[in-house]
Amino acid sequence: MRIVLLGTGNLATRLGISLRSKQVEIIQVFGRSETSGSQLSGLLGCSFTTSREEIRLDADLYILAVSEDAIPEVLSGSGIRKQLVVHTSGSVSIDILSNVSENFGVFYPLQTLSKQKEVDFSTVPFCIEANNAENLKTLSILANILSDKVYQIDSAKRRQLHLAAVFVCNFVNHFYSIGEKLLLEYQLDFEMLQPLILETANKAILLSPPEAQTGPAVRDSQQILEQHLILLKQHPAWQQLYNLISIDIKNLKQ
Amino acid sequence: MRIVLLGTGNLATRLGISLRSKQVEIIQVFGRSETSGSQLSGLLGCSFTTSREEIRLDADLYILAVSEDAIPEVLSGSGIRKQLVVHTSGSVSIDILSNVSENFGVFYPLQTLSKQKEVDFSTVPFCIEANNAENLKTLSILANILSDKVYQIDSAKRRQLHLAAVFVCNFVNHFYSIGEKLLLEYQLDFEMLQPLILETANKAILLSPPEAQTGPAVRDSQQILEQHLILLKQHPAWQQLYNLISIDIKNLKQ
Repeated sequence: MRIVLLGTGNLATRLGISLRSKQVEIIQVFGRSETSGSQLSGLLGCSFTTSREEIRLDADLYILAVSEDAIPEVLSGSGIRKQLVVHTSGSVSIDILSNVSENFGVFYPLQTLSKQKEVDFSTVPFCIEANNAENLKTLSILANILSDKVYQIDSAKRRQLHLAAVFVCNFVNHFYSIGEKLLLEYQLDFEMLQPLILETANKAILLSPPEAQTGPAVRDSQQILEQHLILLKQHPAWQQLYNLISIDIKNLKQ
Repeated sequence: MRIVLLGTGNLATRLGISLRSKQVEIIQVFGRSETSGSQLSGLLGCSFTTSREEIRLDADLYILAVSEDAIPEVLSGSGIRKQLVVHTSGSVSIDILSNVSENFGVFYPLQTLSKQKEVDFSTVPFCIEANNAENLKTLSILANILSDKVYQIDSAKRRQLHLAAVFVCNFVNHFYSIGEKLLLEYQLDFEMLQPLILETANKAILLSPPEAQTGPAVRDSQQILEQHLILLKQHPAWQQLYNLISIDIKNLKQ
């Protein structure tokens, strides 16, 4: 299978490197950024272009690894009409590609990906969808090369999954950021929280999140809640979050 | 060192089991619950009492592993006056024990502990504090038996640390709960989110939380945010959280 990768960001980088390590041929990278495009095409040993007209037409699959808003436009001006084109977004419908090519689908890895960190795709759930059975087969073959967890899921379900992922990943990570900022302010080392962060993740998986819950909110320790709200008085946004989440923790318990 | 453990909950259980595995002698467990007290004392091979008057007076250390509100009362009616008594709470001042005994301190493991899950204390930060140098030494010796990470931290700093811990642990875990509830509602398996949960934790530690951030809020993908808010219309509390946290993610980026 010969692939053109459209995009040079976190997902394009991690997916490209991983595909190449599985001997899948990336024949070209397309992107707007000269710097990250040269970097990525260097890593993948393929050519790079910033020009839509120069996108090669002889690949078996075109993977759009760009931000949601850019999806409809990326291939306009290219020669792509019939080739299999997929996007990689959790919350964008497959239909967005129906005007782009006759053959289209979705190839969504449910994982947080950063250029700077390697990822083991073998445990990552891949959610695939296509406009016909043949294209679905192609995507299934590719997904199975990368991962043991391949799911055929439609656009509505994938969006629901993505919403839940935002809570357990992006919002969780934001709370890590708040923790880091607070410790910086208190002149304490973020390293102190790291065993707690890892254990919280592991415990929620081994038990279940509601069963794993601890802390002042689930114990309904009013005195501690009040002290913490006072400590947060310089951070009204975090104070509000603290209050709302503590109430929600108590509600979930009941 | 001979220890009396006061409490039969998550912390008493994990701490007791861990101390015993290090050949530290637990001579008695005190608690209100007959069931969990018998269970724990059975595990630790020691006696159990529900009566304050029967608390043994010949231990070197009394560890209060009870909820914050119960700390001042636990030893009232016992014969303890001079023995070394410590509490284990993140957000309670050491001074709460000044009326309980002449010798007192704090022995706070910064970790989320549940009866149902074993924990490796060797990487857990222990925060210790005492009313004099000799008692601090005793606590330091004990903490070093359990862990490689022992910090001498005063009550004000410990409370700050605990506040940050609430964000990265209890609030994070609540978002795992929300993710689980959403998937249940959507008839999807929570198992699908587990690689994401683990990678999010590992990535934040390897990079740093702000550097590790991904998702629609940090990309400022207005279209996705709006779709997600519509999906959450049956859950106004989560809708409000989604909105506030997305704004805060954008603010932190700037």
